[in-house]
Amino acid sequence: MASGNISTKQPWQMTATEVLPRLKSGKLTVVDYSKSLLERIHTRDQVVKAWVWLPPSTILQRAKELDSLPFDRRGPLHGLPVGVKDVILTKDMPTQYNSRTLESEEPSGIDANVIMSLRAMGALIFGKTATTEFASSKQGGWHQNLTCNPQDPKRTPGGSSSGSGAAVADFQIPVSLGTQTGGSIVRPASFNGCYGFKPTHGAISREGLAQWCPTLDTCGFFVRSMDDLELLANAFRLTDDSPVPSQRFELRSAKIGMCKTYNWSKAGPGTVKAMSRAQELLQQHGANVEDVVLPDDFANVLDWHAAVLVGEGQTSFLGQYLLDRERLHESIASYVDNTKKLTHKEFLDAYDNVARLRPAFDDIASKYDLILTPSVVDEAPLGLENTGDMSMCSMWTILHVPALNLIGFAGENGLPIGLTAVGARYTDRHLLHVSKAVADVFEGEGGWKMAPRS
Amino acid sequence: MASGNISTKQPWQMTATEVLPRLKSGKLTVVDYSKSLLERIHTRDQVVKAWVWLPPSTILQRAKELDSLPFDRRGPLHGLPVGVKDVILTKDMPTQYNSRTLESEEPSGIDANVIMSLRAMGALIFGKTATTEFASSKQGGWHQNLTCNPQDPKRTPGGSSSGSGAAVADFQIPVSLGTQTGGSIVRPASFNGCYGFKPTHGAISREGLAQWCPTLDTCGFFVRSMDDLELLANAFRLTDDSPVPSQRFELRSAKIGMCKTYNWSKAGPGTVKAMSRAQELLQQHGANVEDVVLPDDFANVLDWHAAVLVGEGQTSFLGQYLLDRERLHESIASYVDNTKKLTHKEFLDAYDNVARLRPAFDDIASKYDLILTPSVVDEAPLGLENTGDMSMCSMWTILHVPALNLIGFAGENGLPIGLTAVGARYTDRHLLHVSKAVADVFEGEGGWKMAPRS
Repeated sequence: MASGNISTKQPWQMTATEVLPRLKSGKLTVVDYSKSLLERIHTRDQVVKAWVWLPPSTILQRAKELDSLPFDRRGPLHGLPVGVKDVILTKDMPTQYNSRTLESEEPSGIDANVIMSLRAMGALIFGKTATTEFASSKQGGWHQNLTCNPQDPKRTPGGSSSGSGAAVADFQIPVSLGTQTGGSIVRPASFNGCYGFKPTHGAISREGLAQWCPTLDTCGFFVRSMDDLELLANAFRLTDDSPVPSQRFELRSAKIGMCKTYNWSKAGPGTVKAMSRAQELLQQHGANVEDVVLPDDFANVLDWHAAVLVGEGQTSFLGQYLLDRERLHESIASYVDNTKKLTHKEFLDAYDNVARLRPAFDDIASKYDLILTPSVVDEAPLGLENTGDMSMCSMWTILHVPALNLIGFAGENGLPIGLTAVGARYTDRHLLHVSKAVADVFEGEGGWKMAPRS
Repeated sequence: MASGNISTKQPWQMTATEVLPRLKSGKLTVVDYSKSLLERIHTRDQVVKAWVWLPPSTILQRAKELDSLPFDRRGPLHGLPVGVKDVILTKDMPTQYNSRTLESEEPSGIDANVIMSLRAMGALIFGKTATTEFASSKQGGWHQNLTCNPQDPKRTPGGSSSGSGAAVADFQIPVSLGTQTGGSIVRPASFNGCYGFKPTHGAISREGLAQWCPTLDTCGFFVRSMDDLELLANAFRLTDDSPVPSQRFELRSAKIGMCKTYNWSKAGPGTVKAMSRAQELLQQHGANVEDVVLPDDFANVLDWHAAVLVGEGQTSFLGQYLLDRERLHESIASYVDNTKKLTHKEFLDAYDNVARLRPAFDDIASKYDLILTPSVVDEAPLGLENTGDMSMCSMWTILHVPALNLIGFAGENGLPIGLTAVGARYTDRHLLHVSKAVADVFEGEGGWKMAPRS
């Protein structure tokens, strides 16, 4: 639905799916496409500030190399520009984690596994996007420019994948990488107004990503169309045990669950309205919509998530702490010091309890074609220091299930509000398949339209 | 017990605990100590071949810098040389994973978190030690020299931390780092004859370690004395919920479990004899020794471990596979291709079943002061291509519990045979505390003596 009439689009307006055939056939050169994006970035990024490293000469050099590849050697992502959250290692660009302890102009020298894969398929690593310090939840302590929400620069783009969410929603790049430990992909996707997909935990390599909580950290994608997610799912070889049918999913008679979760009391008017409007639209299109009420145990998941953040944070930041404690943000240092006095028993109970709930949720999810749940408590709040509340996302992260922010709704101030589609672990392809049909309805009739701002 | 008379020891013969006070006080310079180790390595490593990267000039330069530090600025590990398995990133040395796809003379540019911590505490990163390709279980495909067992060069040192185990047991270095996904710390420690400690999974950061199975991969240590493990446990801030008493653990009336596991039918004569001799010795020292019979469910753990290896391997090596499939060892490529046709359902069942057993084993372990179990099926086998059977270790790795190879016994050919001490998750300090008393008995009366070969 976001595609509009492609013949009238500028290159920078295109989705990955739209631009790739042009790049592969040479109808559009990678150099010209890159210049179009750089121009868009030049126009917009003084306001949005999504990028912390963007080297035009490196980009254009690499674009030229890609253009010189014979057609039969062009990879499945030939020339596709990708923005990379600055907690993911890139051999030709620095990785600074927005931490004073790792400030550097030196390229990392090493590619994260996901970057290796992207380069092997012909993608063009474009630049590094802004993050909170070590992708953590706490704000303050930024030593770089604060990213703004492209829909309203007085508002936060969300975090911690702030720049990746803002850059894609602002049509500065078609695809970006983010990571989610609490709600760091889904929340910025909702706040900025784009698709944000966190696959099943473990479905994509985490080697070379900043490690805060290995039990939670997941790499995922921001894009502007559902087709682009299918493209990336193919590229990264995401598979389900039962392959999805090739024909389009029909909403008529589909069984959709609406899961308000035990966190529903936090939902603001925008999210309440989006959930009810979604239900109405799905019913109008013939779907059977049911409330999903989770068993009591699920009421504790956010506490367990919090315990894992603290328990794993204690180990993860020891190196930086010992090397350079004064330049580490206090909130990070406090993990190492275990200022919350979390015991190992509490930490292990969190692990073991949530491990019991994972197959239980898979069973619940398998009864539906899709489950919809809030992405955020409401629209992006005013101010840049606080990246917003992750509590609507954390449960899905720790349950390890695929979670996808769908767009189409708006809050009281006209800013985008997303809803999250979730499914059982390792049913990522099924989730994308059903979500595509749902996304068409939401984008078409939900009320909020994706469009480049100026 | 390994210490002997320290005044007659050459520097290279000392343990970390013995040498550190000398280095800190300046009684022995880091330069002289390093030269002593380099000399030992020079004498022995043409046979043992433990090192894949050893830069004397870098070492001596860094040693000089450490010697020039004022006494009050010397860290807790001042001047301590550490060998690093070549799957762990080091900013000043290459990391090659013994893979043709990552052959390089370029320093990695980045330190793994554990290396950051070591450097911050004053350790001297000495060189990189030999590993199997990506620390995987399969042999063949080595592009570097094959490491030998220092006790008998015709025998394997075990894997995948081959060089780290061999170098410590051969008195070439006092401390080395390894990683364990199946049995890659405990097995080489047993085969070569030294202590090998795999802490609770997650107790030490895994950022910057090769990622094969994030659910299993654990960083740990090889040393020649139990005191050195206490030193490292302090350095890496391993803590239990209940602190261990400061006085020595008394074996009299201690409750020790002997756990033969469901894999006992694989035990060869050396391991059978070591288990029975251990029981005898502990009883002679007044301990109450009981058999620990695990519930039926534990019979399946090795299958679940195998499923996790395959399932996580599929994701972990995608980058190298897409970039350079022909130069990737077939056994690694086959993970990506999922030649075993593992379904996600089988993979998730493995996760969920073993997650149920973790707290169940913790409960069992909490009834004993310590549980002893085999480290290996028997002595190091003849030949270098096959690094031996990991099946005695894998269960403890996937249960996430701390596992420590104790030395002191010998097999039919006079080679060392270790036994593993295990405990509940996050009782690492308790495990070391009790094991110290047990280790004294085993080293003193078990029959096999640690000594430098020539």
